Amino acid sequence: MKYPFPKIVWAAGLCCLLFPAAEAQSLLGFDAAATQKELALEKQFDQQLKAENLRAHMKRMSARPHHVGSPFGRENAEYARDLFKSYGFEARIDTSYVLFPTPKTRIVELVAPTKFKASLTEPPLKEDATSGQTKEQLPTYHAYSADGDVTAELVFVNYGIPEDYETLKKMGIDVRGKIVLAKYGNSWRGIKPKVAAENGAIGCIIYSDPKEDGYFQGDVYPTGAYKSDAGAQRGSVLDMPLYPGDPLTPGYGATKNAKRLDYKDAPTIMKIPVLPISYGDALPLLKALGGEVAPAAWRGALPITYHVGPGPARVHLKLEFDWKVEPAYNVIATLKGSEYPDEWVIRGNHHDGWVYGANDPLSGAVVVLEEARALGELVKTGWKPKRTLVYALWDAEEPGLLGSTEWVEERQQELKDKAVVYLNSDANGRGFLFAGGSHTLEKFLNQVARDVTDPQKKVSVSDRLRAKVLVDGNPKAKQEARSRADLRIGALGSGSDYTPFIQHVGIASMNIGFGGEDGGGEYHSIYDSFDHYTRFKDTDFSYGVALAETMGRCVLRMADATILPFEFQNFSNTVQQYAAEIRQQVDAQRTQAEEHNRLLKENRFQLASDPKEPFVQPEPMPEVPYLNFAPLENALATLEKSAAAYAQATASTGTIAANDLKKLNETLYKTERYLTHPEGLPRRPWFQHQIYAPGFYTGYGVKTLPMIREAIEQKNWKEAEQGIQRVSDTLTQFAQQIDKATQLAK
Amino acid sequence: MKYPFPKIVWAAGLCCLLFPAAEAQSLLGFDAAATQKELALEKQFDQQLKAENLRAHMKRMSARPHHVGSPFGRENAEYARDLFKSYGFEARIDTSYVLFPTPKTRIVELVAPTKFKASLTEPPLKEDATSGQTKEQLPTYHAYSADGDVTAELVFVNYGIPEDYETLKKMGIDVRGKIVLAKYGNSWRGIKPKVAAENGAIGCIIYSDPKEDGYFQGDVYPTGAYKSDAGAQRGSVLDMPLYPGDPLTPGYGATKNAKRLDYKDAPTIMKIPVLPISYGDALPLLKALGGEVAPAAWRGALPITYHVGPGPARVHLKLEFDWKVEPAYNVIATLKGSEYPDEWVIRGNHHDGWVYGANDPLSGAVVVLEEARALGELVKTGWKPKRTLVYALWDAEEPGLLGSTEWVEERQQELKDKAVVYLNSDANGRGFLFAGGSHTLEKFLNQVARDVTDPQKKVSVSDRLRAKVLVDGNPKAKQEARSRADLRIGALGSGSDYTPFIQHVGIASMNIGFGGEDGGGEYHSIYDSFDHYTRFKDTDFSYGVALAETMGRCVLRMADATILPFEFQNFSNTVQQYAAEIRQQVDAQRTQAEEHNRLLKENRFQLASDPKEPFVQPEPMPEVPYLNFAPLENALATLEKSAAAYAQATASTGTIAANDLKKLNETLYKTERYLTHPEGLPRRPWFQHQIYAPGFYTGYGVKTLPMIREAIEQKNWKEAEQGIQRVSDTLTQFAQQIDKATQLAK
Repeated sequence: MKYPFPKIVWAAGLCCLLFPAAEAQSLLGFDAAATQKELALEKQFDQQLKAENLRAHMKRMSARPHHVGSPFGRENAEYARDLFKSYGFEARIDTSYVLFPTPKTRIVELVAPTKFKASLTEPPLKEDATSGQTKEQLPTYHAYSADGDVTAELVFVNYGIPEDYETLKKMGIDVRGKIVLAKYGNSWRGIKPKVAAENGAIGCIIYSDPKEDGYFQGDVYPTGAYKSDAGAQRGSVLDMPLYPGDPLTPGYGATKNAKRLDYKDAPTIMKIPVLPISYGDALPLLKALGGEVAPAAWRGALPITYHVGPGPARVHLKLEFDWKVEPAYNVIATLKGSEYPDEWVIRGNHHDGWVYGANDPLSGAVVVLEEARALGELVKTGWKPKRTLVYALWDAEEPGLLGSTEWVEERQQELKDKAVVYLNSDANGRGFLFAGGSHTLEKFLNQVARDVTDPQKKVSVSDRLRAKVLVDGNPKAKQEARSRADLRIGALGSGSDYTPFIQHVGIASMNIGFGGEDGGGEYHSIYDSFDHYTRFKDTDFSYGVALAETMGRCVLRMADATILPFEFQNFSNTVQQYAAEIRQQVDAQRTQAEEHNRLLKENRFQLASDPKEPFVQPEPMPEVPYLNFAPLENALATLEKSAAAYAQATASTGTIAANDLKKLNETLYKTERYLTHPEGLPRRPWFQHQIYAPGFYTGYGVKTLPMIREAIEQKNWKEAEQGIQRVSDTLTQFAQQIDKATQLAK
Repeated sequence: MKYPFPKIVWAAGLCCLLFPAAEAQSLLGFDAAATQKELALEKQFDQQLKAENLRAHMKRMSARPHHVGSPFGRENAEYARDLFKSYGFEARIDTSYVLFPTPKTRIVELVAPTKFKASLTEPPLKEDATSGQTKEQLPTYHAYSADGDVTAELVFVNYGIPEDYETLKKMGIDVRGKIVLAKYGNSWRGIKPKVAAENGAIGCIIYSDPKEDGYFQGDVYPTGAYKSDAGAQRGSVLDMPLYPGDPLTPGYGATKNAKRLDYKDAPTIMKIPVLPISYGDALPLLKALGGEVAPAAWRGALPITYHVGPGPARVHLKLEFDWKVEPAYNVIATLKGSEYPDEWVIRGNHHDGWVYGANDPLSGAVVVLEEARALGELVKTGWKPKRTLVYALWDAEEPGLLGSTEWVEERQQELKDKAVVYLNSDANGRGFLFAGGSHTLEKFLNQVARDVTDPQKKVSVSDRLRAKVLVDGNPKAKQEARSRADLRIGALGSGSDYTPFIQHVGIASMNIGFGGEDGGGEYHSIYDSFDHYTRFKDTDFSYGVALAETMGRCVLRMADATILPFEFQNFSNTVQQYAAEIRQQVDAQRTQAEEHNRLLKENRFQLASDPKEPFVQPEPMPEVPYLNFAPLENALATLEKSAAAYAQATASTGTIAANDLKKLNETLYKTERYLTHPEGLPRRPWFQHQIYAPGFYTGYGVKTLPMIREAIEQKNWKEAEQGIQRVSDTLTQFAQQIDKATQLAK
C-alpha cells in the first residue's frame, strides 16, 4: 500500500566533501581483502541488471486487475514463482486464507435539501489502455468497512483526526448520529472512520480534496499525472494499529483449517460504514452544507465556501459487502546459504494491487524479480551466499498486510531463530533515496547509499540526497547535513510488509525506495496503470535499476559479511534524540496546560471570542506532573557506553574462532529481539517493539518510544511512568546483548 | 483608503489583573485634581454620542458616488461643513486642484489561444439599493495607470513583488515584453505595476484571487460579505513611496495657480498600463496559461492548476484616461483654544470614497462629525479647550492622499510651529482596537484604551485586545502580553492621511480604529454600500461610538493636559527593538549568503534539482560585511538615559512657572520634528522621518529605521553605514530635546 512519499525522510548523510576517504576503505563486517572481493562482486551484480526486464514484467503483471482473490493475482503469483525457479531459486507458493470483503451495494446520495447521487465510478480513458476493463476492476471502496444503511445530516470534519473533533467541540458541534465527511490526508485513512465512530458518528465518507490530491497539485490525468474529479482512493480501513493481518486469526496463521473468529466479532473491522469518493462526487455534498464557515486551515481547493454543517445536507449511505475468505498466495523463493544456512536474509515486496497496481506495488515487485535474476547469474559464475536468501512476493498486502502477517505468524519461532534481517520495498519512483528502518542498520545503509549511483545526476544516491536536504530541508536537518557523517534514516511505523517482521517479531528491518520527483494522483485508483507509470513515474526504469543496486548490495553484504554489519552508536544517538523530544514535549504540555488554565481563570477566551460566532468555554486542562525520567537517562547512558565499547572492539580486525564468530553473529542479529516485550504495547499486545510502533491515532505514522509517547499524548501519566520503566529495562537488556557481542568480538 | 485590517497590531497591553490600580489614579499630564475633572468631562462627552447620528450621516453621505470631482462629493463636503458650523465650530472648505485621471477606454481580452473579453463590470444587485446607479459610479480601474495599448503573452507573477521575480528567474522565465497577471495581496497594489515595469513588462493586470478575497474566505455577496466573481478592487497606483499627493506639484501646495509638471513628466505616475479585474474575469486568462505549474505558494483558490506561462495565452490590454485636474474639497473646522490658541490638536478622516464608500471612509468620517457635535455640546456647558482643535474631513484621499497632502504642503511652516498631534481614523468596524503611531504616544494611548468600554464585552477595549493577543497572538506577543504593562502600538507606514503629517513634517500622529470581526470583500467596490455595512460591519454603530469615545478622549486630553502627555521610555524601548531586529537581520543575511555560496560551490543546487524541470544555477550572493553599529548603540544608550530622566522629573508634580510650562509643552510636541531630516530618505526626500516610513517595495507596509533597513535589504552596505550614522545623529538630537524638556520640568 505504501505511505505517500515523505519528502525528506533522511535528515543528514554521508558527504564526500566533508568526510572524504576514510570510511570508503572497508565495509562494515568485511576486512580489507573481503571488502575488495565484495565490491567486485557487486559490480558484477550491477552488470546483470536490465531496465527492459523491469518494464516487461510490469507490463505483463499490470495487464489485468490483480487484487487478492482475483484470477490474475494467482497468475501473477505463478508467473513470479516460475521466474524464481528459472533463476535457480527453490520456489513455492505459501497460501493463507484470509477474510477479504468486496462490495455488493454502494450508495451515497444527497437526499436534502437537494437531490444528488454520487457516481462512484472511475471512467475509462482512451489514453489509458487498461482503464476500460471494467468487469474485473474492484469498485472504489474501503475494505473492512461495516455493512450499513444510514441516513443522517452531514458534518464536514476536515481530516477527521482527534484534533479536528476538538475544534468542532469548540464550535459547539456534535457528530453523534451524523454522517461525517472527511478529507483524505494528515493520517492514515483507517483513523478517520475509527475516530468518527468513537465520536458517535454513524457513517463516514472520505473524499480526495483537489488541494492535496487533484488540480491544485498539478494537471490532472490524462493531461497530467494528478487526480481528476472522477478519481477515488480505494484502501483498507482495517484497524491495523490494533493488529494487522487477517482479522479472523489474530496472532496466528490463517491456515486452511485455523480456528476463525466470526467476522462480526473481529475487533479490527470498522464499526460504521465508510466509503471513499472523488472530489467530483464530494462537491455537491459540500455545497449543500450550511452552518459555520469551516476554519481557514480546513478549507480545500474546491471553488466554494467550505461550511461545517450539520446539515441542511442530509445523506443516505448504504453499503453491503460479501464477507468471503480468499486464498492469499505468497511467493517464496530461497537460495540456500553455503556457510550459515540457518541464517536468513529476507527480501520482499508485495505483488497484489488494488487494481492494476503498476506503481503500487509492481514498480517494487519487478525489482525483486530482477535482483533474483542477477543473483542467479552470480550463482552461475560459482558464487554462493554464505547465508540463506529468502526472496518473497507477498499477496494481500493492500487489505491489511495479510499475506506477510499470516506468513510471519505461522512461522514465528523459526523466524525468531533464523531471520537476520528483513529488507522491504514497495512502490518505487524517480527522485531521491528514502529509507526507514532499524537504526542498528543506519550506518550500514549509509555505506550502501554511498556506493549506488544516481541515474540522473551520476553522483552517489547518498550525495544527491544530502544535497536535497541541504537545499530544501528544515533548519535542523540542514544543520545536521553539515555536521553529521551519516544521513539519518526514518523510523518505521506501518504501511507495508515490514510491519510483522519488525513490530511483531523484532527482526531488524529496512524499507527502501526512491521518489519525490514522480508526483501523481493515481494512488489506489484504476489509473495506477502501466500507461500512467511509464508516462509520469520512473519512465525509463532507471530508478528501478537503482533500487535493485541498493537492495542487491544490502542482500549481498548481509549474506556474506564476516561479522554482521549491525552498529549501535547511531542507534544510541537516535534513541537519545527520541527521549529528548519526549521530555521537551512533556515540558511544553505542562506550560501549555498552565497557560490555558490561567487564560480560562482570567476569562480571556470569552473576551477574545466573537459574539456573532458560536463559543464554547474550553475545559480546564489537567495539570502535567513532573515525570521521573531518571531510569531512562541511566539506561541511555549504559547503552551509549555499550555501543562505544562494541565499536572499539570491532575497530581493529583480529581473528575470531569460527565458533565464536557464529555466536557473535547470532547475538548480533538477535539484538533487535531484545527491543520487544512479550506483553507488547498497552491494549495492543500484537505490537511488541518498544522503540517503534505505528501510532494508535496516526495509523501508518510512527510513534517512537510508543508506550511513553502515546501515554503522554493521552495524558495518562501513570502509564507514562510505566512506559519509562519498560523502555529503560528494554534498553538495558539490549545493552547487555551488545556487551555480550563485545566480549565475543574481542 | 485604509490598509486591510491587520489582525493584531498591538502586541501587548494594559491589564487590570496584572497591573491593577496604581496607574489608573492619574492621567499623563494631569495632576490628581485635574484628572478627576477630566474624567468627569469625558463622561459628559460620552453621554452626547448617539449611534443613530452615525447611521443617519452614513446613509446620507453614501447615497450616491462621492469620489473626488463628483457632484455628490462636493455636496458631502458642504453638508459636513454646515454640520460643523451648526455644532459651533468655525468651518470652511479649503480647496486644492489635483490631477485625477478617469478612464475613457478599458479593454482586457484574451486573443489566443482562445477568445475571451473581460466584462470589467460589477452588476447591480437587488439586495443592494445603491448598486444600480451605474451612471455616476467610477468604473473599476487604477488611478494613475499609464495610457497604453499593448498585446503580448501573459505571465502569472504571483503577488508581483520582488521575491516573485527572483523565483521566476530561477525558473528561467523573463517578463520582458510580456503582460503580467498578479494577484492582489502581500503588498500595496501600486508596488505590482512598478516592479513589473522595472522587470520589463509592458502591461499589468491585477486580480482578486478568491483565496485572499472571495469564496475561500466566506460566503460571497449578497449571501455573505465576501467578494463575488464579479467584484473588482479599484485603487490608486500612484508611486506614493516616492511622494504622495498631487503628482504635478511635488512638495508644495496644489493651489489654483501653482506651477505644475506636465503629467507625462510626473515621476509618480505608473510607466505601464495597469487594470484591476475580478476573479470571474481572471479565470479564463489563468486557464489559458501553459508553461510550468506555479510554485505551491503561488496557487490560489480557483478550480484550476495554476500555470506560470509565458503564453500560450496572449492578452490585449488597452487603457485610455482623461487626465483632468479636479477640485479637492478639504473641510476644516476649528474650535479655538482658550489658553494656547497656537497649539493645534488636529483630528481627521477622509470623506471621499471610490464609489459609495460606506465603510471606507464614511464609517470613520461620521465619527468625526459626531465627536464634533459632542464637543459642541460641551462648549454649550461652558467648557472650552485650552488648545485649538482642528477637525478635518479630507477629500481625494483615495487617489493618493491628495487632499491632506496638499493641505499640509501648503501650510507646512505653520504646522511645524503649531501642530501638537495629528489623530487619524479611516474605515471603522466591529472587533478589536487597532492603533499605530508615534511611540511617544504609546503610553498615552494605553491610558485612553483602558478607559473606553468594549460595546460587546463590557470590559475596556484594552482588556479585550489583551485577551485576544493572549489567546491568538504569536508566541512573542503572548509573552509580552504577560510581561509588559503597555500594549505595543504598531508603527505607521502609509495608507491614510496621517502620512503627510508624520512622514513629511514630523508631527506626532496616531491612526486608530476597530476591526477584525467584520471581514468582507467590499473594499473599493460598488458594494461598499450602506446596505453591506449595516448587514455585515458595525451593524448597530456601537463601535462607531467606541471610536468616538476613544478619539474624543485623545482630543480632550491633548487639548487640556497641563503637560502634554508625551512619554519617551516606550519610544526608547521600541527603537531598541528595531535596532535589535536589524542586527539580527544582517547576521541572518550573512549566514544565508555564506551557506548559499557554499552550496553553490559544492554544486548542491544542481544535484538537488529535478532534471525534468527548468533549472537555472543561482547567482552567488555578495558577502555581507560586519557593519559598525556602535554609533547606534551609543545613541540608544543616551536616549534610554534621557527618557528615564524625563520620566523621573515628571513623576512628582511640582509647580512650573507658566512661561516654562509653555516652553516645556512646545519642546515636547516639537520633539517629533527632530526625528526628521531635511534631506529625507535616499532617493525620496519627501519622506523626512528617520524612524518610520512606508517601504519602497511594500507601499503601505512600514519599514522602521528605514534608511538602515532598506539599505540592508538592498545590500547597499555603504548606505547602511550612512544610515546608521544618520539615525544615530537623529536619536541623539532627539534625546537632547528630551533633556531640554527635563530641565524645564524640574
